Amino acid sequence: MTSTYRVTGMSCGGCARSVETAIKALAPAAIVNVDLDAKAVTVDGASADQVKQAVDDAGFGFEGAV
Amino acid sequence: MTSTYRVTGMSCGGCARSVETAIKALAPAAIVNVDLDAKAVTVDGASADQVKQAVDDAGFGFEGAV
Repeated sequence: MTSTYRVTGMSCGGCARSVETAIKALAPAAIVNVDLDAKAVTVDGASADQVKQAVDDAGFGFEGAV
Repeated sequence: MTSTYRVTGMSCGGCARSVETAIKALAPAAIVNVDLDAKAVTVDGASADQVKQAVDDAGFGFEGAV
């Protein structure tokens, strides 16, 4: 199931890669797409709790599903 | 003990914060200082293994102590 979350604090491609890698560290099979302009992270294959944990640990702001 | 590591792939303040937060997720008491221009991360209170794990999980490049 694909879900999209609002994630704040990402300002460049390095930030986007960081969020993607952090999610995949917790859910290796996840498919992650980051839209920097929309502050949106779309994830297939990880739970909302995993995404929140990964985003928190990576230092960005998890603001829930959109 | 303070150690300095070379970390590649950080290009903005969001990246720097991400690395700092990832290290503190593994070593909560660590003191972390990131120098973006020097690609250097100085850490007190975390092992090199912890720093490597955190940097890897956050999607940046750990290149060892400098």
